[in-house]
Amino acid sequence: MTLQPHHIAAAVNAVRAQQPLVQCITNIVVANWSANVLLAAGAAPAMVDNHHEARMFAGVAGGVLINTGTPYDDTVAAMREAVVGAADAGTPWVLDPVAAGGLPWRTQVAAELLSLAPPAIIRGNASEIAGLVGAGGGRGVDAAHSTDDVLDFAGELARQHRTVVAVSGPVDHLTDGDRVVRVHNGHPMMTKVTGVGCSLGALMAAFAAVTDDPLLAAVAATCLLTVSAERAMVGDPGPGTFAVRLLDNLGLDADALASAVRLS
Amino acid sequence: MTLQPHHIAAAVNAVRAQQPLVQCITNIVVANWSANVLLAAGAAPAMVDNHHEARMFAGVAGGVLINTGTPYDDTVAAMREAVVGAADAGTPWVLDPVAAGGLPWRTQVAAELLSLAPPAIIRGNASEIAGLVGAGGGRGVDAAHSTDDVLDFAGELARQHRTVVAVSGPVDHLTDGDRVVRVHNGHPMMTKVTGVGCSLGALMAAFAAVTDDPLLAAVAATCLLTVSAERAMVGDPGPGTFAVRLLDNLGLDADALASAVRLS
Amino acid sequence: MTLQPHHIAAAVNAVRAQQPLVQCITNIVVANWSANVLLAAGAAPAMVDNHHEARMFAGVAGGVLINTGTPYDDTVAAMREAVVGAADAGTPWVLDPVAAGGLPWRTQVAAELLSLAPPAIIRGNASEIAGLVGAGGGRGVDAAHSTDDVLDFAGELARQHRTVVAVSGPVDHLTDGDRVVRVHNGHPMMTKVTGVGCSLGALMAAFAAVTDDPLLAAVAATCLLTVSAERAMVGDPGPGTFAVRLLDNLGLDADALASAVRLS
Repeated sequence: MTLQPHHIAAAVNAVRAQQPLVQCITNIVVANWSANVLLAAGAAPAMVDNHHEARMFAGVAGGVLINTGTPYDDTVAAMREAVVGAADAGTPWVLDPVAAGGLPWRTQVAAELLSLAPPAIIRGNASEIAGLVGAGGGRGVDAAHSTDDVLDFAGELARQHRTVVAVSGPVDHLTDGDRVVRVHNGHPMMTKVTGVGCSLGALMAAFAAVTDDPLLAAVAATCLLTVSAERAMVGDPGPGTFAVRLLDNLGLDADALASAVRLS
Repeated sequence: MTLQPHHIAAAVNAVRAQQPLVQCITNIVVANWSANVLLAAGAAPAMVDNHHEARMFAGVAGGVLINTGTPYDDTVAAMREAVVGAADAGTPWVLDPVAAGGLPWRTQVAAELLSLAPPAIIRGNASEIAGLVGAGGGRGVDAAHSTDDVLDFAGELARQHRTVVAVSGPVDHLTDGDRVVRVHNGHPMMTKVTGVGCSLGALMAAFAAVTDDPLLAAVAATCLLTVSAERAMVGDPGPGTFAVRLLDNLGLDADALASAVRLS
Repeated sequence: MTLQPHHIAAAVNAVRAQQPLVQCITNIVVANWSANVLLAAGAAPAMVDNHHEARMFAGVAGGVLINTGTPYDDTVAAMREAVVGAADAGTPWVLDPVAAGGLPWRTQVAAELLSLAPPAIIRGNASEIAGLVGAGGGRGVDAAHSTDDVLDFAGELARQHRTVVAVSGPVDHLTDGDRVVRVHNGHPMMTKVTGVGCSLGALMAAFAAVTDDPLLAAVAATCLLTVSAERAMVGDPGPGTFAVRLLDNLGLDADALASAVRLS
């Protein structure tokens, strides 16, 4: 199936109608922001990130996000439990391997999680995606590799784990190892507010809960966030105002969204 | 004593005058937001949530909040210490049993804390309150039980622990097991920003520090937050702008607040 | 060298040009806010706060912030690693000893970190600075000592650890044990939003990455934040709007900043 804007509009409406429960094991920097992005998009966030409850909850949730932004021994244990619980229950899970490649411990954690069960989607910047295929480097959350350079890595990673790989950048590149979709929406201000990328991973988990096509889930989440960001930048606000308006705009009309997306 | 709007105004002014120190052991999602709500209301937040310091600090604080939103082994140890410290010093503490009933481990943690010493106030949605009396269920932080259904549970829980139980919902129901107060203020947008309910628990700890009547503390905190929310919704903003304006409005005039509250 | 406004403007421009990578081991309350302040100022935040990666990352980062706002056994282990890594690599690090003096465990943690290697800058309120020299007391994050009283402590602490000590207050006092600079900018609203002081410590780490003079780094960070706060208060907004506008204003023109600073 070739993804069309009307598929994206339908996915956005499905999230709003079904209000999927999204379990997030994410970092202390973006937990609040990610929850608010999910709520503004119509989903129901639940940050169940302890090892006692993570497995059970992954069986109840509609989607699971695992983000390695500030991993600790304790929350990494919860990540393992959640992946196992998601796999057992057939719950789609999303991996956001923050700073993979640049930092050895979390790169190993991400690789271990991938070995437990395949995620529905892996989302990262070019550097993180490259890091997951062993071609790492990079300085923290910045993208050292260009997005174009990493497309080969993305396809390889997608085929290797039978997953969708979403590479965030000025143009977003998303692939299931077969199809490739580029999203040309967005604004550079998205890199000047912390957690915008992390919240994209959370949104992908919400969308994966309402569609059987993980590539559509990843593309729809990307379109919703990037088009909302474009609207939030009307009038050229600073980063504080931009973040507030981004939340305000996530409720935009699904048809208006469909007419604003620029895919290739 | 039947609670009247002028009692609420007096409590709000007491918080602003005394600036009570409120120890919060809360979750990574709402720690920032809760601190800002407390500051905007005139209180002094201090998130002392490690097991080394929690007991001692609970003896110095004016009120203590314990919220089970993202519990870990380490912070649960701090919760135990804080409850013991609060009980030893006579410091009122508030329990916000996030997702109790729905998740077994934290339900057990909440029950254990209740067994250590009675809190001044328990605040939750209908599902969480039901969960604490063993009638659980629910999906994370959502309210599976209607508020009306849970009133019997609330009264039972209040009498069992000689505490005040505050059930948040479209109408808030608060009881000390004898008196019942309903607060009819608020706006549905309060459920579209993460942590609004959690910050209500924190506010209750601030109000409990300045009055000997925990029911008044719980009602006054509820009125301050819900009336501020109504004012923040003037012009029908989105969730990002609503959250900003809610903080702006928490400093509203106490007499204006008293004339806006709708109790029954 | 006597610090002049043009030195401050040059430092601000250097941060924007070099976008220094700033490792923050900070607290769950302000992690999001601090990251957004750093981004708005032109720096690149990375909250690498686990003990597996903290040492290595401190060797890669341009500056390191250690903030004791919500310390846990696990993150304190990361703090130790980061200080050792920073010392080994010559990376400047900043200590923000939140609530030192008032709480024995974290006071001991701060003292231990100081014993490992001297920081470039110590930033705190008067109570915290007094607490570090063993003259403690205080109630959490509030300043029990007046800023003037603490100037002797600040000079003593600066000389003892061959560091810069920055005492935040209505007037900020900064000293390297020899020179003393006072910054008269700012607004009381800065104390009504959580984490403004914590973000100042993070900014100091960013500025320390781009200048060899830690006193200039501390003064420039203080000027950028306090002048931005003054601008954010135009129109007398509430605390929610103030926080948003503060982020918006951190990108202000460096020359405009230089002409607004009031030093003595």
